[in-house]
Amino acid sequence: MANPSSKSSGKAPAGGTTRITPRATDYSKWYLDIVEQAQLADHSAVRGCMVIRPYGYSIWEKMQRELDQRFKDTGHQNAYFPLFIPVSFLSREARHVEGFAKECAVVTHHRLRAKTDKSGVEVDPESRLEEPLIVRPTSETIIWSAYKQWIQSYRDLPILINQWANVVRWEMRTRLFLRTAEFLWQEGHTAHATEAEALEETRRMLEVYRDFAENIMAMPVLRGEKTPGERFAGALETFSIEGMMQDRKALQAGTSHYLGQNFARAFDVQFLNAQGQLEHVYASSWGVSTRLIGGLIMTHSDDAGLILPPKLAGIHAVIVPIYKTDEEKTKVYAECEKVMAEIKAQGHGVHWDKREGLSPGSKYYDWEIRGVPLRIEIGPRDVDSGKLVLVRRFVLEQPGENEKALRMRKKQILSRQEALASITPALAEMQQQLFQRALAFRQKNSRLINSMGEYDEFFKQGGGFAWVHWAGTQEDEETMAKQHQTSIRNIPLPGQGPEGSDAPGVCILTGKPSARRVVMSQSY
Amino acid sequence: MANPSSKSSGKAPAGGTTRITPRATDYSKWYLDIVEQAQLADHSAVRGCMVIRPYGYSIWEKMQRELDQRFKDTGHQNAYFPLFIPVSFLSREARHVEGFAKECAVVTHHRLRAKTDKSGVEVDPESRLEEPLIVRPTSETIIWSAYKQWIQSYRDLPILINQWANVVRWEMRTRLFLRTAEFLWQEGHTAHATEAEALEETRRMLEVYRDFAENIMAMPVLRGEKTPGERFAGALETFSIEGMMQDRKALQAGTSHYLGQNFARAFDVQFLNAQGQLEHVYASSWGVSTRLIGGLIMTHSDDAGLILPPKLAGIHAVIVPIYKTDEEKTKVYAECEKVMAEIKAQGHGVHWDKREGLSPGSKYYDWEIRGVPLRIEIGPRDVDSGKLVLVRRFVLEQPGENEKALRMRKKQILSRQEALASITPALAEMQQQLFQRALAFRQKNSRLINSMGEYDEFFKQGGGFAWVHWAGTQEDEETMAKQHQTSIRNIPLPGQGPEGSDAPGVCILTGKPSARRVVMSQSY
Repeated sequence: MANPSSKSSGKAPAGGTTRITPRATDYSKWYLDIVEQAQLADHSAVRGCMVIRPYGYSIWEKMQRELDQRFKDTGHQNAYFPLFIPVSFLSREARHVEGFAKECAVVTHHRLRAKTDKSGVEVDPESRLEEPLIVRPTSETIIWSAYKQWIQSYRDLPILINQWANVVRWEMRTRLFLRTAEFLWQEGHTAHATEAEALEETRRMLEVYRDFAENIMAMPVLRGEKTPGERFAGALETFSIEGMMQDRKALQAGTSHYLGQNFARAFDVQFLNAQGQLEHVYASSWGVSTRLIGGLIMTHSDDAGLILPPKLAGIHAVIVPIYKTDEEKTKVYAECEKVMAEIKAQGHGVHWDKREGLSPGSKYYDWEIRGVPLRIEIGPRDVDSGKLVLVRRFVLEQPGENEKALRMRKKQILSRQEALASITPALAEMQQQLFQRALAFRQKNSRLINSMGEYDEFFKQGGGFAWVHWAGTQEDEETMAKQHQTSIRNIPLPGQGPEGSDAPGVCILTGKPSARRVVMSQSY
Repeated sequence: MANPSSKSSGKAPAGGTTRITPRATDYSKWYLDIVEQAQLADHSAVRGCMVIRPYGYSIWEKMQRELDQRFKDTGHQNAYFPLFIPVSFLSREARHVEGFAKECAVVTHHRLRAKTDKSGVEVDPESRLEEPLIVRPTSETIIWSAYKQWIQSYRDLPILINQWANVVRWEMRTRLFLRTAEFLWQEGHTAHATEAEALEETRRMLEVYRDFAENIMAMPVLRGEKTPGERFAGALETFSIEGMMQDRKALQAGTSHYLGQNFARAFDVQFLNAQGQLEHVYASSWGVSTRLIGGLIMTHSDDAGLILPPKLAGIHAVIVPIYKTDEEKTKVYAECEKVMAEIKAQGHGVHWDKREGLSPGSKYYDWEIRGVPLRIEIGPRDVDSGKLVLVRRFVLEQPGENEKALRMRKKQILSRQEALASITPALAEMQQQLFQRALAFRQKNSRLINSMGEYDEFFKQGGGFAWVHWAGTQEDEETMAKQHQTSIRNIPLPGQGPEGSDAPGVCILTGKPSARRVVMSQSY
């Protein structure tokens, strides 16, 4: 057992013995170090599939709760559709099959049998399915085959359904949270009587995602429409939210699609409209996934480990007792008990680290790696003087500056009353600071680019979000992509860019007139 | 479109045009009629897989919330493990492979390709997996392969993890909720340093299930140990909770297993104990599934449709407006608005049925089918007189009697204030009444049976729970099973049976001495 730190239990960190690779040394390694050492996820025995550990899963649960509430507030209900999709269903929508009938998990048999040499079990060749099934990579087809049973008239519309589920896309190159063969997500699938309603829904859910990303994850995002080449397979319009990670690459964090009547046609879903005519139903679909956890890590964390926005932290404050003798322990523990109860009563998550045989310093280190916003240290002298030591996971020293503006704060010694009273405002301030810092970082690394020369220079110097006028072909896009590994992230909705970004101009490659700028950048 | 009632949307019932088959006519048909007409679930296009519709899923969400809170209160955390299990993993635990390496979904390939005639897609034979994967039927093996990475010393124990997930067992004969190829469940998997702790956990979770079944589902259950032939494949001890359905058959509603060191041995999971010795870890696992929804239906519902215990109802009260003219509508709607706000403010779920073109009577019928506990009717004269009509979904007329004791109550006309004040106590009373009635029904149909003659007679007359002394072999059990399709449900823990049920006696078949009675019955 060479590396004890990877061997700790699901319930608490093991005491720091390894270091997190600094971002400046190896950004990818830094990311994976945090995922592993904060015990967010592990690789599993199954290729490309991850184990989401309790600490990582608790973040997903918080995200789910926030999103689910927003879905319900906008009139949606949850339901559950089958995991399996008959292969023939994919072929019904021409573009959908091109996009999804590729790398996927195919179920071909339904039974195992004992091997004749009794060395184990094997697939029973007698159990071949008449039609192979795939494990859902997305559920439009299976859901629209069900909607056909539910819809006959305009009175049955709209249908506003969301599903929380696992999906599988047999990715060749995987990366924990960001790209895995199996992942968890939600997928909304709505059915409407008119194009206008379906489009309104598509935009409404994009706004729900923005609100969630910015106000809960503290991750600023650009809303915009994808270019035709980047659309969801089967969609007429795809919108995305794109965040900027600390390496200045974009992360597509959520998508919302207007599907027109494509899936209704594919599954023959018609309704009698108010005028008594049969018409195909209009559709939207939209989703976010556990990929958001990857985005969360890469937006906020530092070289000491994870940084969690308070709204997604299960533990807001960790209490670390400091003592040497049994007598001191008794005294300190009594105080910890009281402090814990008071923080709980404030409605915050609190954890009292009672692990024995581990120095306070090792505990600090563990909880810093895990991104717990506040640490409270209680020693015997603090009890005597009625004080507490309160430490924030980070402070923003130079708002508006780059990532170095986040530093570990030195200890703050406060009276117990002061300390307890400062917890709620401290958490609110930290939530706000994370968003402000990420926004400042994005602004600093966003540029209006008006020529190919500027474009080259921008990406040679580290890049970011290049706001460019574009009227090139899809081939031209690929040429651009080859030079700097950039792509068009989206065509941002107005009002989100640097000053002047909403004015018309000319394409930086072709010189043709262009009504709106697109954002080009490297991406995950 | 022959049957309009099966065609309604996900959001509201369509107006009753079909009837539910009475229990006395065809119990199985009654069950399926309720599932369909209350819009709980549908058959899907994939063999044996169901679509859980929004109304059915909302019950599952309520169940999840209650269970999840209980799991967390007992120290458990949620996590997520891969959907796929390598076939070789199953073979590692000898009994487990016998139990689960049978009917399951086997993934053998990872890619589709276009057919050469372009008529669709097919499995790409080049994409065969080196080792086939099965879709998890249960997750002991994949989870213990992960635990091996997390456990090295007693300090890493216990691990108390639960997973909410979908599982697949390729059942040949399926029935919505009760037995489907894919179903949703939770599975707890815990790791302990001692046998005593693992056993304590096994029993603790059995008690959590009992508490949930009785206090939330209002379904009385018998806790007991399964006989060796009925144990979970790989367990040393299996405990179950068993409910009695209205046809007097038992439904196994949850199980909790003590797994000993079997899976730790299979996956070589050892820990250094406090004495510095290597030892295999002790395990428990426990689960309940969407099958509970089937149990809920069959415990409480009547010939008018679903009956929901208030603690699992998303809608506690439905408001049905009654009007003829536009003027009346305006007046009635203003009152509905106020009443709705007041009920919401009390913390109850309330739905105002605004559907046009549907008579109040059709609406009553719909909401009765869906089991909404309370109905409030508001007409123009009620507004004038400051009154409301309050109707309970059921009243218990003869407590302690059989299922006929539940009847539809006649209308109760109350002042608005009285009506609103009575909602909370009415819901509490209805919750209690459902439990009391189900308990009385079980008691009435439970019998101490002391001879084979009595046993035959009991099951000829409809049966129920037969409390018998038993010391037969597994072969003898099979003989008994053939005669009356009965099986040993479990060996109840003391204190749950009719008077005298805890005393020792002699086996009804063999005459051998027996320390405890078992419960035999027909079952699902």
